[in-house]
Amino acid sequence: MHELRKDPIIGRWIIISTERKKRPQDFVSKIPTVSQYEFRQDCPFCPGNEKMTPPEVLAYRDDGEKDGPEWRIRVVPNKFPALDPNGEPEKKGMGMYDIINGVGAHEVVIETPIHNATFGCLPKEQVESFLWAVKERMVDLMTDKRMQYIIVFKNHGTVAGATLEHPHSQIIALPIVPKTISEELAGCRIHYELKERCIYCDILNQEIFDGRRIVINSNNFMVLTPFASRFPYEVWIVPKRHIPSFTDTSLEELDELSSVLKDTISRLEKTLDNPPYNYMLHTTPCHMKNLTYYHWHIEIIPKLANVAGFEWGTGYYINPVPSEDAAEHLKSLCTSI
Amino acid sequence: MHELRKDPIIGRWIIISTERKKRPQDFVSKIPTVSQYEFRQDCPFCPGNEKMTPPEVLAYRDDGEKDGPEWRIRVVPNKFPALDPNGEPEKKGMGMYDIINGVGAHEVVIETPIHNATFGCLPKEQVESFLWAVKERMVDLMTDKRMQYIIVFKNHGTVAGATLEHPHSQIIALPIVPKTISEELAGCRIHYELKERCIYCDILNQEIFDGRRIVINSNNFMVLTPFASRFPYEVWIVPKRHIPSFTDTSLEELDELSSVLKDTISRLEKTLDNPPYNYMLHTTPCHMKNLTYYHWHIEIIPKLANVAGFEWGTGYYINPVPSEDAAEHLKSLCTSI
Repeated sequence: MHELRKDPIIGRWIIISTERKKRPQDFVSKIPTVSQYEFRQDCPFCPGNEKMTPPEVLAYRDDGEKDGPEWRIRVVPNKFPALDPNGEPEKKGMGMYDIINGVGAHEVVIETPIHNATFGCLPKEQVESFLWAVKERMVDLMTDKRMQYIIVFKNHGTVAGATLEHPHSQIIALPIVPKTISEELAGCRIHYELKERCIYCDILNQEIFDGRRIVINSNNFMVLTPFASRFPYEVWIVPKRHIPSFTDTSLEELDELSSVLKDTISRLEKTLDNPPYNYMLHTTPCHMKNLTYYHWHIEIIPKLANVAGFEWGTGYYINPVPSEDAAEHLKSLCTSI
Repeated sequence: MHELRKDPIIGRWIIISTERKKRPQDFVSKIPTVSQYEFRQDCPFCPGNEKMTPPEVLAYRDDGEKDGPEWRIRVVPNKFPALDPNGEPEKKGMGMYDIINGVGAHEVVIETPIHNATFGCLPKEQVESFLWAVKERMVDLMTDKRMQYIIVFKNHGTVAGATLEHPHSQIIALPIVPKTISEELAGCRIHYELKERCIYCDILNQEIFDGRRIVINSNNFMVLTPFASRFPYEVWIVPKRHIPSFTDTSLEELDELSSVLKDTISRLEKTLDNPPYNYMLHTTPCHMKNLTYYHWHIEIIPKLANVAGFEWGTGYYINPVPSEDAAEHLKSLCTSI
């Protein structure tokens, strides 16, 4: 089967090429799993090594002191930040080129004290604490008038870009709106002007009608393999309530999201044997929080193949696994929730 | 140094983050080099194994028969094509989604009979034959009215997406125009409407004025590290004459390009110790050959680091090596031409 499919939001085409079809067990770029929980003396994110990171900006602990070892979740500035927290973002020209000095924030959310835990194996309460910490930091960073966008993402495994093994996510506050988000906003606005409806809400309805790409359908969230998946086993978590900004999720939704996120990652870990992956939280820009036509969501992409010249040259993707097949594998598993 | 730089054509920002600065020898994802030229019995691209590929669509040989072993350059259909050469591209709806059946061409250009040669070590005449073959196949594929775009690219090394070691490039004819090219065309058109000049021609002038990002400045070509390089040691080869389509390069230009391309890849091979890389040829869509505001060029990206969640989530890039530093390393080498 050769089929070109178009992402309805940003118009990106992908090629489904099942001549190169692969089963889950054909993807071998897995990360070794471990049988025993570890703490490492040389890991800056392990409890007891708090002095190896800059002082924490947020931590959840039942007891103990700031920068002490009894935390459950810890957020610290990145020791090697991609951007500088001080100064004003000044726009300058250099001949025909545009420059902004690199002002922004770069923080690390340490997801668990356990060095070699995987996200899918964390207790549901731990995932909930993690989500609370992310929300709390986003709300705080969004008050910084210099910042235009807060991006939250995770690199799991070396090939997904992780440089430290200890489970962590990253938060970067940017003085510019990402291209990816601008493209989504433009696509959402065009759809809204045409239909007076949110395109993500339309996708949820379409997926319920079709049924083949739904992995989890809970009260408040749908987990689906998108119609035009760039990568094998790409998964999106979309809230059913139309909320533009992640920071407006309710208590009840965040509680349910922690189960849904844990379950989703756990299914990926089981189906693909602890694959490297990235997740990215897509939400509204800081100063456009109430954009009616946007709908926050999480995109998760397992890194099972190398991005090659075709993808770099076209911006399109060749995917050997149709999203219907990926959903079937992922939903067939029994999980704990 | 933290600095945000904007690509003037498509508006993509990149972050120069020299806290993570690296010297050429810090990049370790190199491909082993070999001391002796090899032929392999199990390689479908080695001479003598012509039966392991579909019949050739083009070959340059001084002597011998079609699909015989005495070729210098050989172009064959991909045995596992991403698209199907037969049928008409039909646009269909599936609920709210868009589909086109996967019609297109997918060919492989075998660049040399030698299994373990690197591009930079090929004789200049061999590179010229390769460029002729690419041009010849593009001209032929562009006559196919079903096709909208011909993309030419190379994946060198596993992490750059190569599945076979034997030096080869790929040609894919698509029934749609790539997103990357549409974005460049839009950026070029806006600049042209504003200035009545080609933006690539303006970039060449800007780079001559500045001088710090020029690697090679020959009669007909400039090799530069772009101001807003996505990746360390990203290099563009831009013709000085304003020609929209690669297929309109002159005899003299193609002759010179073979020296320039060989020299450029050779500098990357020497500076980065045979790195994995991709190159992509950017040219006009098939049926817009005379677009006045576009300017064909080649983009080369060494794959020295993994693309991570930040890049996937934003469409922007964090680059530890300013393009001025990369150009300085690359131009300091003595090469054979």
